[in-house]
Formats: sequence, C-alpha cells, structure tokens
Amino acid sequence: MSKVKNISGFPEWLPKHKLVEDGLILQISKLFKSYGFTPIETPAVELKSTLSSKGVIDKEIYLLRRALADSSDKDDEELALHFDLTVPFARYVAQHYNELTFPFKRYQLQKVWRGERPQRGRFREFYQFDIDIIAREVLPIACDAEVLAIIDQAFKLMPIGPSTIRLNNRKILLGFYESINLDSKLQKEVLIAVDKLDKIQIAGVEKELEKLSITREQISSILKATELRCGRSDVSRLTSSLGCNHPLYLEGVEEMQQIMNLLPEANVLFDLSLARGLDYYTGSIFEIALQDHPEYGTVSSGGRYENLASEFINKKLPGVGVSIGLSRIMDLIVKKGLCDQSRLSPTELLVTVYNEEQRSKANAVAQEARNCGMNVEVFLSSPKLGKQIEYADSKGIPFVAFIDENTRAIKVKEMSTKNETTVENIREWCTGKAFE
Amino acid sequence: MSKVKNISGFPEWLPKHKLVEDGLILQISKLFKSYGFTPIETPAVELKSTLSSKGVIDKEIYLLRRALADSSDKDDEELALHFDLTVPFARYVAQHYNELTFPFKRYQLQKVWRGERPQRGRFREFYQFDIDIIAREVLPIACDAEVLAIIDQAFKLMPIGPSTIRLNNRKILLGFYESINLDSKLQKEVLIAVDKLDKIQIAGVEKELEKLSITREQISSILKATELRCGRSDVSRLTSSLGCNHPLYLEGVEEMQQIMNLLPEANVLFDLSLARGLDYYTGSIFEIALQDHPEYGTVSSGGRYENLASEFINKKLPGVGVSIGLSRIMDLIVKKGLCDQSRLSPTELLVTVYNEEQRSKANAVAQEARNCGMNVEVFLSSPKLGKQIEYADSKGIPFVAFIDENTRAIKVKEMSTKNETTVENIREWCTGKAFE
Repeated sequence: MSKVKNISGFPEWLPKHKLVEDGLILQISKLFKSYGFTPIETPAVELKSTLSSKGVIDKEIYLLRRALADSSDKDDEELALHFDLTVPFARYVAQHYNELTFPFKRYQLQKVWRGERPQRGRFREFYQFDIDIIAREVLPIACDAEVLAIIDQAFKLMPIGPSTIRLNNRKILLGFYESINLDSKLQKEVLIAVDKLDKIQIAGVEKELEKLSITREQISSILKATELRCGRSDVSRLTSSLGCNHPLYLEGVEEMQQIMNLLPEANVLFDLSLARGLDYYTGSIFEIALQDHPEYGTVSSGGRYENLASEFINKKLPGVGVSIGLSRIMDLIVKKGLCDQSRLSPTELLVTVYNEEQRSKANAVAQEARNCGMNVEVFLSSPKLGKQIEYADSKGIPFVAFIDENTRAIKVKEMSTKNETTVENIREWCTGKAFE
Repeated sequence: MSKVKNISGFPEWLPKHKLVEDGLILQISKLFKSYGFTPIETPAVELKSTLSSKGVIDKEIYLLRRALADSSDKDDEELALHFDLTVPFARYVAQHYNELTFPFKRYQLQKVWRGERPQRGRFREFYQFDIDIIAREVLPIACDAEVLAIIDQAFKLMPIGPSTIRLNNRKILLGFYESINLDSKLQKEVLIAVDKLDKIQIAGVEKELEKLSITREQISSILKATELRCGRSDVSRLTSSLGCNHPLYLEGVEEMQQIMNLLPEANVLFDLSLARGLDYYTGSIFEIALQDHPEYGTVSSGGRYENLASEFINKKLPGVGVSIGLSRIMDLIVKKGLCDQSRLSPTELLVTVYNEEQRSKANAVAQEARNCGMNVEVFLSSPKLGKQIEYADSKGIPFVAFIDENTRAIKVKEMSTKNETTVENIREWCTGKAFE
C-alpha cells in the first residue's frame, strides 16, 4: 500500500474550508465583473523562453519532462510551469492583440508554481487573483483609482478584519532622489534597500545605504523621507515637509492627489517608505496589509507600469494592476479559524426516505426544492430516521424534510432550533428561503 | 523580442469564449451543489509514487524538476503533474478519511496534464469535471441513478444539442461471458476487444476475438450480444433475447431495472456493446455522446467501482462517478460557433463621461447600478461621446448611460434597438433588469 502524506508547500483544504475559498472566489469574481473586468485563463504551461523573457527567473521555475521522454522529444522546446500571471498575461495580450478591445480589463485567477526547495516551508503551488487595465499608448489616471477602489472593496468581502492600502508613486521617489543629486545608477539600489524597511527596520536600511557610495547627507535625506506618511486630508505635507520641487516629484504628487480625489471611501494611506523591489513600476505603487494580522505581511500588491509586453510586441501598452495572494489569505483563515466551519457541504435540505418504495416521491420533492434554488440531498438508502438525522447533523445540513407516507404532507425540521413546519408542498416552504 | 506562438495541445480561449466557459462552469457547479456535492481541490502536483500506485502510467505523465536543481534536491521525491482527478481524489479520501462524512459526495473541476508527444495534436492540458459518491462498505443503487440524473441534466445545460447516455453493467457482461464458459482470464481481453466496436466496427472486433483462444460459438455469442440495445420500456429483452440465466447476469439486469425506474426523465439507452476498457469498474458503466456531433465521440463517461482507494487505505470504499471532458466540449463550442459571440466582456452598462469634473458623479451612478447587481464600466477618459459609444459597440456592451450635466437626469440607450429611456436615478432603470 502506498504511503499517503502531505507534500510540503502544496496546500490542500478540507471540504469545509474549500467551501469558504469557493465562496470568496465567487464574490471576488462578481466584484471584478461588476467593474467590467473579463475573465481570461492561460495554460499553466509556457515555453521556458517565454517565462525568462523578462530576465533571470530560472531559480524559481519548474521545468517539465515526459516520464518516458525519448529521442523524438529532443527538438521540442523546453516547457515550464508559470511562476506568476503577469508574464503569461503579457504573452496573451501580444498574441491576441488584434482580437482584443482596449482599454482591456481582465481578471485572472489561477494557480502558480515556484520551484522553492521543499525544506523552506514556503508555498510551491498557490492561487493568485490578478486584475489589470491595459491601454494603448496612454493610460488615464482614473485607472489607478479604479483598481484601488476595487481592491479596497475586495478586502472588505473577506473575513480577515480591516486592511490598509499603502500608496506611493515611483515618480515621487525618483524625483526626490534626483533632487538630492543621487546618481541614476544608484537609485535602483536605494529603492531595493528602502523596500526592506519592514523586515530590517530603519537601522538596517541605514546600514544597507552606507554600503553604497552615497554621502551622509543623502542617506539622512533618504531616511527622513521614509518617515513621511499622510492621509487624504494632508497631502500638502508632501510638498511642505521635504521641500522638494523636482518636476518629476511634483508630477507624482499631482497623480496621488487625483487618485485620492476619486477614492472618497477607500482606506488609503500615502506612505513614502513604500518602495516595491521591481523596477517594472513607473507610477503608483501600492501594498495591502491586514491590521489584525501584521505577521502575514503584504497580502496584495500592485502598481502602474509603462509597458506590459515590450518583450513580445512592438506596441506601447501601459497598464495598472494588482495581485491578491489568495492562498496566503486562505491559509490565514484556516489557521486562525476565521470562518464558519459548521457546514461540511453545500446541502441546505436533506429529504429523508422511509423505504425504497418512497424514493421516487422523495426525488420529486427534492427536485421541486432544487428548482426553487435550494441545494438538496435525498438520503441514498433508507435506514432508521435517527440515522438519517444524524447524517444531517454531522454534515451541518440546516433543514431536514420528512414526507408523510399517507397524506404526503411534508414536515420540515430546522436542525438548530428543532422547530418544525408542515407544508402541503415543498415550494411553499422554499418561498422566502434565501440561501447563498 | 521573444517570439509568441501557440504550444500545440495547450488550448487558450479569447475573452468571448472564456465567458462562455465560465458560464458553463458556474451552471454545472450550481447543478452539482444543488444535489449536495461539495467542491474539493487537490494540488496539481503529486508524488510520482502516488500517481503510479494503480499501475503503469509512466508514459502519460509530466515530471517536474527545478530549473536550478542542485545536490540538495536529490533526496526530494519525484514530483509530477496529475493526469486525471481519480487518483488524487483516492489519495485525498485516504489522507483525510477521519475528517470526511460518508457517503461523501464531491465535485472537482481542475486541469489535468498528459505528457503526449506534441505532434499528435491532442490536448496536453485540459479541464475535467468529475463527480463521485463514495460510501463505506455498501453503496446503494440509488447512487448510480442519481449520478445519471445529474449528468443528463448537466448536458441539457450545454449549447451542444441532445445527448445520449449509453448504459451497461459489468455484471451483465461478465455473467454472460461466464454463461458461455469463457475462461475468466480471457474475459478482460474480450472486454477490451468489444470496447473497440465504435472504432473498428463489428468485423474488426471479430478479428480481434479470433486472435484469442476461444471457440467460433463463443465469438458468435459475444458478437450477437453486442447488437442488443433497449430502451426503458423493453428491458425484458435483456432476459429473453440472450436466454442467459447466470446469477451475475440477472443481478446486473435487476440493477439496471432499478436504475431506470429512478430515472423517469433521462435519455438513457441500454447498450450491450458498451464495455469500457478499464477493469476498475464492477457494476454500472456509461458513456455520453452527442447526437449532433458524433465525430467528438465520448465526451463524458463513468461507472461504479468496488473500491476507490485500496492502494492508500485499508477500508472498503465503493463509489460511482462520472467525468465530463469540459475542454473537449469547449473546443466543440468554439470550433462550431455554438455560442453567443457578441459579448467581449461581462459589462452590461457603460456610463459615459463628458469631462473629468464629471467623473466622481459618473462613478457614483455606476456604483448604484452595481449595487443593483449590474456589471458597469465608467469610461476611463473623456473623449468625444461618439468614441465612447464606439467602444461600447465594439465590446458588445448592451446599454450606454449619459448623465445630463445640468439636470443630472440619466438617459440610457439600448444599443441594439437605439431606444432611449430617461430616469431620475439609475436604480429606477435597474429595477426589473435581470442579467446573468
């Protein structure tokens, strides 16, 4: 007999948790669709050459090979599992460019794979939930605001407490670095150092900066800038506190102001310490953290970029997007028990069966309730009723129906209250019951 | 710049088709849930030893290897992509046995991968949609009927014309083979030969049978049996035509009769030529084909088995289940254009924007419509209205709203009829609109 065991890094949920995950997926997908984002899906598998087109990513990917590969395979290009949804999306837009309408708004929920070493205990397979808006040539700033409004609403749908969106703008950072005469070659390294603030604190960032060939004054300006936070009402501090008048800096501040004006309700905080590691981003950058679960760090992040698919197509396609780490969030919900765990199935009503002669009638009653939108099981054999009720109880099924053998009236019992209702037909009972 | 091209065998849909696929997935999932089936999901990746526990499958699987594998990887067991959902499901049930409630009814929709040679032009990544009912020790015959009722309804949800369920029972076949004194070692080979009937016709099956060491009379009886078909009304032909009284045969006929009695509405045909290759099945076996698209062959199949997970756990877990080849069906829908292709996004209403000062008002109107359940886009910049209407037209968005700059009344235009309605607020217009 084969041993059965977990492979670390490949999460798998019990039915009670998968029901919660599916509920979240459904609600978030509905939200994305309510803003006109259309679903797309790319294969899990891409050419290795496609995945590496943005630079060195080899250490994180899984390559595929046929178990019985033979000499006929050798001309086949190397295949690999995608490690994010951004590169496949860029390839998709380039490949289907002439069949898409721009601005193109898409959402994409898929598993991604990372070839981590197993002992590190990190996810090697997990869900990402991405949205992006891609335009041709020019991407209006309203797009940044829309993506932020949606992500704010998405987090309000999840049972994980309040979230905070930290927002910054690469133009502000780079404009500021220019204004203190930081060499453009060093700016990227400074961004990478500042990006580590949450992990290594201010003293750690200072040490990292000291390794670079920049002056004491520059370090002190950079560190001072990381302390600047402001809400919607005091954006003016961005221009007063740092005394920076570099045109790029002011352009970034203006963009932030416009975005904030379009977000009257979202919980967004300007945070000058937010840097994001990737040099991909060119304007807005943002990260979402959970106020009650700081140890989970950043559970979602995104930003604006100038060109989605320059590796694949000779068109300028600026975009803005955000990615939600759904599996990390589910891990949090499961580990902290932040969901209803009483329902082990979607079933709302169990129709009991006294004997096999009654099964067709029970099936008909169940079908009527299904036609009213209910999820209904008919007990699949006909043991004593006590055993059937026990089954409903163990699965968290909220209602149980009993069909009278003589009158054919239906008695429905609510499991939690033990209340009983008797009806002529099940439609009567279903009316007004609104599940899901 | 990287070349962008299709990798054969890895299908990918345009947005208009992905919307159709998502609609089918939603409807079929709802159907499964309406019978109390609960969703589960297993990782795409299993240990190679798990996947091969049922026998030789090596030629079909993809193995994984880290792109930068080094000596620290060598103790890691080999990982592979699952090639179906049955083996992972068996592993799941064994692994979580103590946390599941039986009978366990689950559905599972996931991609599976087959390490086919690319030149064969077959799918190497595709969706399967499976349901199974698993019981402890004894699985009531009502389960077979329920699975057949569901699959019949599932096919009625798809825009692919009428389908036929062909039903047989391994007990009937094996009881019949016993009654003609066919050696039990040969029975499996006879099943495999008969299973090829659709591909090689009766003469081909005859040739295959002639290769086995069985008599002329046995061959003639086997071939005669493959001709027997009957509907719900003439099940009696099963006992009269073949004159077989073997107890196993009669048991199978009795099971078929019970199943049919519980399926007053499904389009099911007994077909004695149906054999199914796998020796896994022990009772009901069935296949679904499409009347209007015979060239697509079997698009769904299933049956009853005595033991789901004997390789992984020392428990008797009989089950019955069915698998739908969703990607094959989508391929059919796309190739034959069997769906509405006018909608390129889920958007139902576009709110136009005269100028950027009006954007906040437009956002508020859109949000009100979203709260009424509509999918709404606000145009993301503010060019001439003609350009905005053109966008709605090119994306197949059915309604466009214009907010009067002075009165703030809202005019909604139906794109197909050019009819216009003016309302005080958008909620008024949304009432009674029922999309999705």
